[in-house]
Amino acid sequence: MIDLRSDTVTKPSEEMRKIMFKAPVGDDVYGEDPSVNELEEYAANLFGKEAALFVTSGTQGNQAAILAHTKPGQEIIMDNEAHVFLYEGGATSAFAGVQSRTLTNDRGKMGLDDLEEAIRGEDIHFPETALIWLENSHNRSGGSVLPVSYMREVYELAQKYKVPVHIDGARIFNAAVASNASVKEIATYSNSIQFCLSKGLGAPVGSILVGEKSFIDLARKKRKMLGGGLRQAGILAAPGLHALKTGIHRLAEDHEQAKMLAKVVDEYTDLNVINEVETNIILADTSKSGRSANDWLAIFKDKGILAVAFSPTTIRFTTHIDVSKEDINTVIETIKTL
Amino acid sequence: MIDLRSDTVTKPSEEMRKIMFKAPVGDDVYGEDPSVNELEEYAANLFGKEAALFVTSGTQGNQAAILAHTKPGQEIIMDNEAHVFLYEGGATSAFAGVQSRTLTNDRGKMGLDDLEEAIRGEDIHFPETALIWLENSHNRSGGSVLPVSYMREVYELAQKYKVPVHIDGARIFNAAVASNASVKEIATYSNSIQFCLSKGLGAPVGSILVGEKSFIDLARKKRKMLGGGLRQAGILAAPGLHALKTGIHRLAEDHEQAKMLAKVVDEYTDLNVINEVETNIILADTSKSGRSANDWLAIFKDKGILAVAFSPTTIRFTTHIDVSKEDINTVIETIKTL
Amino acid sequence: MIDLRSDTVTKPSEEMRKIMFKAPVGDDVYGEDPSVNELEEYAANLFGKEAALFVTSGTQGNQAAILAHTKPGQEIIMDNEAHVFLYEGGATSAFAGVQSRTLTNDRGKMGLDDLEEAIRGEDIHFPETALIWLENSHNRSGGSVLPVSYMREVYELAQKYKVPVHIDGARIFNAAVASNASVKEIATYSNSIQFCLSKGLGAPVGSILVGEKSFIDLARKKRKMLGGGLRQAGILAAPGLHALKTGIHRLAEDHEQAKMLAKVVDEYTDLNVINEVETNIILADTSKSGRSANDWLAIFKDKGILAVAFSPTTIRFTTHIDVSKEDINTVIETIKTL
Amino acid sequence: MIDLRSDTVTKPSEEMRKIMFKAPVGDDVYGEDPSVNELEEYAANLFGKEAALFVTSGTQGNQAAILAHTKPGQEIIMDNEAHVFLYEGGATSAFAGVQSRTLTNDRGKMGLDDLEEAIRGEDIHFPETALIWLENSHNRSGGSVLPVSYMREVYELAQKYKVPVHIDGARIFNAAVASNASVKEIATYSNSIQFCLSKGLGAPVGSILVGEKSFIDLARKKRKMLGGGLRQAGILAAPGLHALKTGIHRLAEDHEQAKMLAKVVDEYTDLNVINEVETNIILADTSKSGRSANDWLAIFKDKGILAVAFSPTTIRFTTHIDVSKEDINTVIETIKTL
Repeated sequence: MIDLRSDTVTKPSEEMRKIMFKAPVGDDVYGEDPSVNELEEYAANLFGKEAALFVTSGTQGNQAAILAHTKPGQEIIMDNEAHVFLYEGGATSAFAGVQSRTLTNDRGKMGLDDLEEAIRGEDIHFPETALIWLENSHNRSGGSVLPVSYMREVYELAQKYKVPVHIDGARIFNAAVASNASVKEIATYSNSIQFCLSKGLGAPVGSILVGEKSFIDLARKKRKMLGGGLRQAGILAAPGLHALKTGIHRLAEDHEQAKMLAKVVDEYTDLNVINEVETNIILADTSKSGRSANDWLAIFKDKGILAVAFSPTTIRFTTHIDVSKEDINTVIETIKTL
Repeated sequence: MIDLRSDTVTKPSEEMRKIMFKAPVGDDVYGEDPSVNELEEYAANLFGKEAALFVTSGTQGNQAAILAHTKPGQEIIMDNEAHVFLYEGGATSAFAGVQSRTLTNDRGKMGLDDLEEAIRGEDIHFPETALIWLENSHNRSGGSVLPVSYMREVYELAQKYKVPVHIDGARIFNAAVASNASVKEIATYSNSIQFCLSKGLGAPVGSILVGEKSFIDLARKKRKMLGGGLRQAGILAAPGLHALKTGIHRLAEDHEQAKMLAKVVDEYTDLNVINEVETNIILADTSKSGRSANDWLAIFKDKGILAVAFSPTTIRFTTHIDVSKEDINTVIETIKTL
Repeated sequence: MIDLRSDTVTKPSEEMRKIMFKAPVGDDVYGEDPSVNELEEYAANLFGKEAALFVTSGTQGNQAAILAHTKPGQEIIMDNEAHVFLYEGGATSAFAGVQSRTLTNDRGKMGLDDLEEAIRGEDIHFPETALIWLENSHNRSGGSVLPVSYMREVYELAQKYKVPVHIDGARIFNAAVASNASVKEIATYSNSIQFCLSKGLGAPVGSILVGEKSFIDLARKKRKMLGGGLRQAGILAAPGLHALKTGIHRLAEDHEQAKMLAKVVDEYTDLNVINEVETNIILADTSKSGRSANDWLAIFKDKGILAVAFSPTTIRFTTHIDVSKEDINTVIETIKTL
Repeated sequence: MIDLRSDTVTKPSEEMRKIMFKAPVGDDVYGEDPSVNELEEYAANLFGKEAALFVTSGTQGNQAAILAHTKPGQEIIMDNEAHVFLYEGGATSAFAGVQSRTLTNDRGKMGLDDLEEAIRGEDIHFPETALIWLENSHNRSGGSVLPVSYMREVYELAQKYKVPVHIDGARIFNAAVASNASVKEIATYSNSIQFCLSKGLGAPVGSILVGEKSFIDLARKKRKMLGGGLRQAGILAAPGLHALKTGIHRLAEDHEQAKMLAKVVDEYTDLNVINEVETNIILADTSKSGRSANDWLAIFKDKGILAVAFSPTTIRFTTHIDVSKEDINTVIETIKTL
């Protein structure tokens, strides 16, 4: 099986497992796990932020950030296809008591005028605007990348109204590589960023939240409440650090392979690729083919290829570290025969 | 001053005050206030529902309904200009822990396809769809009325997915009068409705929530938690009942006067009426005039007329029981001289 | 029927109804109700606090206070029989997300050492102590009064740890009269107080929250979220103000009558009065009699006297403005014949 | 340093690391991690429950259980020193909106009469009793064990009132070993149990929640919201399973060593052991010595021994897998010289 369902399915490499095997550990609730401490310090530096926090998932990083940035009865402005809105079980409202104000988006970008209009003034009827939320790269629109210039504009607008900006950067390295920017530059235009070690980078488990020290201290307490205060977490942090040190530049290959694959899907099948492939995600519309997304998934599965349904008439392919050039060639040849 | 800011500013009439003076009362927490009991029974019958609950405001009725219909981690589908989303302090998320899934609207109507697409299937990532929310008449689009046929379509769709429907009917009587339907007919297409006694009907304080008995029992408990369990509430219920019995048909006048006024505003000023006036609300855009909403409010105030800003470039006029024909004529004459 | 169930059952007097009838009103959401404004100003002065907020119930006042004083994940220290813990539907946790740390009490008083020990230090495992809660008079222990000296000690301790103190003063006037202190003096030892107009004072509906202006501003917003933002609330505020101006000194009679009644109950029946009657509440244990609380309630009801069960073997009698001297004499004579 | 602070500080053994190195993994969010699946199945069988869920900490297991068992506005009855009440950041109220009704305890046991009295009847003022909570072994009273007969009595009482019982069994294996009962027998008297792999059993990270399948399905969704949906979690599950298979019987040694140590502390120092040592925890009071807990910690640290403060005048020692017989002998000899 060639598994293109998600970049979350990647398995730790032999090298990574060796690192795990040898990882120095301690009790991280006491702050004594050297591997966690090293990872957090490295991540903070990489993003040019004061501090970092290891969490067990993107959802946990996002929710800890929300709990630290907001209070119940406040509002977060985000695009209407944000992962945190669609796929985190409503935790933003359930745990933080915060309302999500969703704006329409164009490849992840909310209109700046819409954004400014959505920022609340002071009124007894209004929730207060506590946070502006960006997702980069943007999953729902097929891994599209927010231009650095756009992030700067949003950040400057936010500064004007004294509203912090959080970036859900589950795939921030894909965005950075695709836009030829460093994550440090991107991070300049945010108060906090969450990014995943377990997607394109290939670590088995974990994400990181970065920001100011006082913010991370607070998020650390919220993480404990979420049950994310781990003991010998170095077991996870050591491969995470390895992934962070070695996995970023490799993402360019995933992007290239995604583009190749998209072209073939578009040319050789009734499927229509509906996103401009900028990173490692391909969205293909099945409408023209007269078949549903699930029909297509079955066809592909039968040929040894796994993808996921993104809507009743959309399927998503994701390239990643565990899909080799040979695998992609196999997929391409298979598709040509369909 | 002629006060067109809102139909909430109406003051109790002499007759209403006399009713208040004589109202039989008891301790409503014990269920012993005869005036409250009579009002609740009358309201339930009027809407063809099993039971009713007196609450102190539309917000309290809406929030008690949400608390009774939902659980944290669920989602309510509503239009993106719903009062409950914009003007209730984020209470839906803060108190009920529920996420608001907002869809674009056309005069209060969400697209049926959008609605169906927004209903969540079962998935570990998804909040569950717990409620569909309609607002009728729809304040933000200028008191526009949801056609009965539209409500039926929404209700049938909701039934198909076993999702209850709540109507925020703060101004349901305006909608009923304007669409020549009874509130009982409208209520057929909902599981619960909240409506206000203190807007067009002219009672000093209060709203009502109607629905099935088991739902109202639960909402009653939620009302107690919100601090809405009152003692000798008959003082409010008695004038409320009077308003309900005598105030509905009179609303046609408010609508007529609003239409007259809208025509004059449009013709004689630089303001543009931007809503089709169906009920008692007029929205006027100030952009063409080169003046802001606040500028215009000052101009009108100076002439003895009060309105409110609805956006930086929109003002709202609302007709109601305390604005007589003479008042409207005065306003019209004043506007002609501007 | 002579109704000794609660001081909440009192009905507005003829005079109070006249005041209601003539009350000037306005839209209180706009801050334009003169009767509400007058009441709030009067109440703030009476308690020597900067500002006051009219709410529809003691529960609403308490919950608005909690929402304004705290954040989720914090803790309130209170006695284990506090009304807010036992009888407010768990709203403290449900709406404010706050944990109640309950300590054993002696007639409403928590031990000062217990209190100090319960104040949390800083630790990633700990909720933060956000509020200390007193209830005066203390309902569950039979209307017992917290000595002013005790309140001062608690307040000084709280100050030392920078924790605010709230008093649930639903029956604060009973406490003040019984301890010969002014409510202004009592209020000195608190950051906020909630008190009821609808219990001993005899107003039909309403309570007041007092505190610093910034606190009351915040509580006002929380009240709106709770659905307590009313329109022509002067209808309730005017009789409330009358009650406040005329009802306090009269409470001494209720206390005297309660003491008389307690003595008779103790002497002439198998019931044992288990509280030292300091205010208007009598708790009688039924154990010795071999009958349950409900049995006794039926016996009394049969004789035209209403009381409530406070536990399976305790009944509570409450004296109030609507129980005249003659009524009490009737009750006493009836009890003597049992 | 000999680290007696907690059994959470244990580091994975060489053997455990080898298991980790070779662990088969998959994406557990898709249910495809074979190591996690094997662990969950093994744990369910071990406890005689239908299903199990791997979580990253005891706090996450407890909170997922609460979120699955309860709704906001309900109440959990627990002892007043429960870990979930004192040390989980107030998450019960902050995330689940649930009130903790705490009862005094004797070595972890709440009185059965107190318990029955605390179960709420139906009343508009009352939170509903949603859960009874036991902690076994009981940390705050020094690892004391709830007798199986007590658990049965509590469970039967709970059944009578149709209230589920959850056991916080962070150290359930210590309890089982000490009371010569199987965890399956203990589990009979509960609806759900949470237990830790990372304390006495020595796994690096993780806990398990067991219960009925429908309950675990719901808890799995709540875990996702808490950010506990991991990817290649087999890295943690494989050593966890090893710990579960090999670590239980060894706990008897920890208990023996704790008893030996307690005796020496009591005899040779001014410290007073205040708990009857049943498992692996020793609580020593410092009052008689005229020194604070922190003073003693410094003295011990200076001698190469680590413990923790449990109160300003109590220190806690915990024996565990990483403290060998030789270590204990060293500690004992050191103490004798103090």
